[in-house]
Amino acid sequence: MKILLIGANGTIGKAVCKELAQRHEVITAGRTNADVTVDITKADSIESMFKQLKDIDAVVCTAGAAKWGHFEDLSEEDFYVGVHSKLMGQVNLVRIGKDYINENGSFTLITGILADDPVRGTAVSAMVNGGIHSFVLAAARELKRGLRVNVVAPGLVEDSVERIGHLFPGHRAVSMTEAARGFCRSVEGNVTGEVIRIY
Amino acid sequence: MKILLIGANGTIGKAVCKELAQRHEVITAGRTNADVTVDITKADSIESMFKQLKDIDAVVCTAGAAKWGHFEDLSEEDFYVGVHSKLMGQVNLVRIGKDYINENGSFTLITGILADDPVRGTAVSAMVNGGIHSFVLAAARELKRGLRVNVVAPGLVEDSVERIGHLFPGHRAVSMTEAARGFCRSVEGNVTGEVIRIY
Repeated sequence: MKILLIGANGTIGKAVCKELAQRHEVITAGRTNADVTVDITKADSIESMFKQLKDIDAVVCTAGAAKWGHFEDLSEEDFYVGVHSKLMGQVNLVRIGKDYINENGSFTLITGILADDPVRGTAVSAMVNGGIHSFVLAAARELKRGLRVNVVAPGLVEDSVERIGHLFPGHRAVSMTEAARGFCRSVEGNVTGEVIRIY
Repeated sequence: MKILLIGANGTIGKAVCKELAQRHEVITAGRTNADVTVDITKADSIESMFKQLKDIDAVVCTAGAAKWGHFEDLSEEDFYVGVHSKLMGQVNLVRIGKDYINENGSFTLITGILADDPVRGTAVSAMVNGGIHSFVLAAARELKRGLRVNVVAPGLVEDSVERIGHLFPGHRAVSMTEAARGFCRSVEGNVTGEVIRIY
């Protein structure tokens, strides 16, 4: 398969890239250090990325920002960082990409455990993750040409423990391999409309 | 209790108003025909509404727009109608209102069955509803002064069957009383962080 991976330089993106590259051709996309440049907060940039590429079988996104902060301190703008990036950025990847990728292709988005079990300071992340979960279900039911869409929701991953593990009291750390396999279930499997929870 | 009801003129708002007014003082808010004028898509308008009111014990929202349309036809702007109104409008009611309402007060938002079971043409509604579900969970865990927040997710309601029932194949119609009671569970009960599904 020819797979477009957006966010290959991130903690989870690196693991997903390593796993998928064993069996597939992976084209990386991101703001920097990638085969193709894209800013997912801009629909024009997404459209331009797809126009540059041919014969994509699968789009995988491990990118998307959302501001952390105690709920009492969050401004409207803080919420919109997440809305423009992790929420609408990922929605736009599917909305625009569906007209470009190959028949029977797939989209695999990313969220996380915070949709179901938000820790302190994650009201924005919870909101955008929950929005993506229901969006994926709805979009899967309407996509044409055999296209599929799923989302992987990893828990706290091992490579993030040192940096943010203290913000997830009592959470089990998921291995990078486990997290990466969640993406394989979507890309290489036949499921659609699924929230693939890895925790 | 003194209850602020936003969207009292809507199909569900009318039923909720009738139910709550039996036992409480209900102040209505909306774009027109209400005690207080508010446009929930504007944070300034929400702030101004709360500044005009005193001693509010509960805020109930039965308002919020989201564009319907087949996924293949939806533009980015169509998604943002839902984002600005039903998603961020309701988030802002809690974000701003938490500094104004009485201690131990509550917020009750509205979503619907489409977060869990989207019918054709409801990718935007699904997304905003799912976003509110996870937001409520996160915000409930961080609110101070004993404040609570819940969301009621009604299915197709009886008074909407004539207008939109054909878009919900096989769905059971929920009575207006059942739907209204969902709001009582939040306003008069002691739950918080709950998605109260009425279907």
